[in-house]
Amino acid sequence: MDDVRFMREALREAQRASDAGEVPVGAVIVCANRILARAHNLTETLCDVTAHAEMQAITAASAALGGKFLSECTLYVTLEPCPMCAGALYWAQLGRLVYGAADPKRGYSLLASSLLHPLTEVTTGVLAEESAGMLQKFFRDRR
Amino acid sequence: MDDVRFMREALREAQRASDAGEVPVGAVIVCANRILARAHNLTETLCDVTAHAEMQAITAASAALGGKFLSECTLYVTLEPCPMCAGALYWAQLGRLVYGAADPKRGYSLLASSLLHPLTEVTTGVLAEESAGMLQKFFRDRR
Repeated sequence: MDDVRFMREALREAQRASDAGEVPVGAVIVCANRILARAHNLTETLCDVTAHAEMQAITAASAALGGKFLSECTLYVTLEPCPMCAGALYWAQLGRLVYGAADPKRGYSLLASSLLHPLTEVTTGVLAEESAGMLQKFFRDRR
Repeated sequence: MDDVRFMREALREAQRASDAGEVPVGAVIVCANRILARAHNLTETLCDVTAHAEMQAITAASAALGGKFLSECTLYVTLEPCPMCAGALYWAQLGRLVYGAADPKRGYSLLASSLLHPLTEVTTGVLAEESAGMLQKFFRDRR
């Protein structure tokens, strides 16, 4: 139930991205049942391909913790991370990854499962339909 | 000859990282024979695993260009990029990647060659010995 609750917070962040004209992806990082960081995709606003929701959440959570390792944390993200974000989660030694919709175009799992840290637990498909629906609506409205 | 000249600038950045107690990796991004961005690894200083030299160089170059695509740019980096950085270079659609030493532990080419954008040209081994020597000295001094 907590997974659904925290994923709803990530979906709220995705909605903020959408409202700002950004591809709607949102993330939160949770430690000891508390949200440490909230972020959404800002690649257009910041004119920076590295500004994915996950990257900003990692930076914010590390600042909040005062440490660069997130082995006690769970990242909730509405879309499967790309290889860049998975590579960052490897360095952060993330404890647990929970994502919503799979990304059949650029999801990390398509390229190499070893992109994540071997100790990171993975749960997929949480509120996947809501996440995918928000993405589909965004791209449909842009056509 | 230009490759050697620009890689020397990347090595200068790596030395700055080393002087600051950071793993010595440096990068410059060049467009039309002009250096747009210089950066070095700052993961310890910023307490942030995403603060690799390449990531910061991408962010800085995009800001300098006012655009998030780097298809007309060359990135010079002293060490083979990791999957996170290769994944970022994919999104940036980097024109050309030139690196020094190979990274036999976490180089992107070990995991999946498709981490980079298909249009990115790659040149390896430029001043590789200087780069590897700086890394070896750094880790030897820390033991």
